[in-house]
Amino acid sequence: VHFAGTHLIVDLWEADRLDEIDHIEETFKQCIEEAGATLLHMHFHHFTPNGGVSGVAVLAESHISIHTWPECGYAALDIFMCGDAKPHKAVPILKRAFNSGRVQLGDHKRGMIG
Amino acid sequence: VHFAGTHLIVDLWEADRLDEIDHIEETFKQCIEEAGATLLHMHFHHFTPNGGVSGVAVLAESHISIHTWPECGYAALDIFMCGDAKPHKAVPILKRAFNSGRVQLGDHKRGMIG
Repeated sequence: VHFAGTHLIVDLWEADRLDEIDHIEETFKQCIEEAGATLLHMHFHHFTPNGGVSGVAVLAESHISIHTWPECGYAALDIFMCGDAKPHKAVPILKRAFNSGRVQLGDHKRGMIG
Repeated sequence: VHFAGTHLIVDLWEADRLDEIDHIEETFKQCIEEAGATLLHMHFHHFTPNGGVSGVAVLAESHISIHTWPECGYAALDIFMCGDAKPHKAVPILKRAFNSGRVQLGDHKRGMIG
């Protein structure tokens, strides 16, 4: 079976530091390094002071995104990586970085052929 | 039931124009307008001339991403939108824009509570 990449859908609950852009950016860099991926571009948007953050990292191997609801302790992420990168290695880094009490993980193989 | 947003996983097969960044960007803008969403930031990366494209649009309502494999006629997209935006409205626009012979669609409710 050949497929284009692994797309993880990651939900963090009971999480904190979800309004700290610098912390989110640093965590993304750790995830990218640990997964063996290559960063091409990052962009973050802070909706209001102390409010939710949206961010994306474009990778040579696809992307990571985050959208946070600090008032709910909730963050919706996805991690899509192709090639030899190891997206699953990012999950414990995310859990630890945001002190998340509960992590839900979905795993999609994208572009499966045969 | 309350949830944070709808996350569509869209696979386009038998598709063309997957190496045309300008066309992809214009298609994203159409999708965003049709869905009633608000664009904050876009970034595209062309891996090699005539090769695959990776792109993201950060929205007030979350994001859209695309990663293309023109040599396979395949594109992996996701469309994540919160609030009143209508992400499903983007799907026929994508199918038509890339003349896709086969579309696979997955639908996740993210951040569901109760």
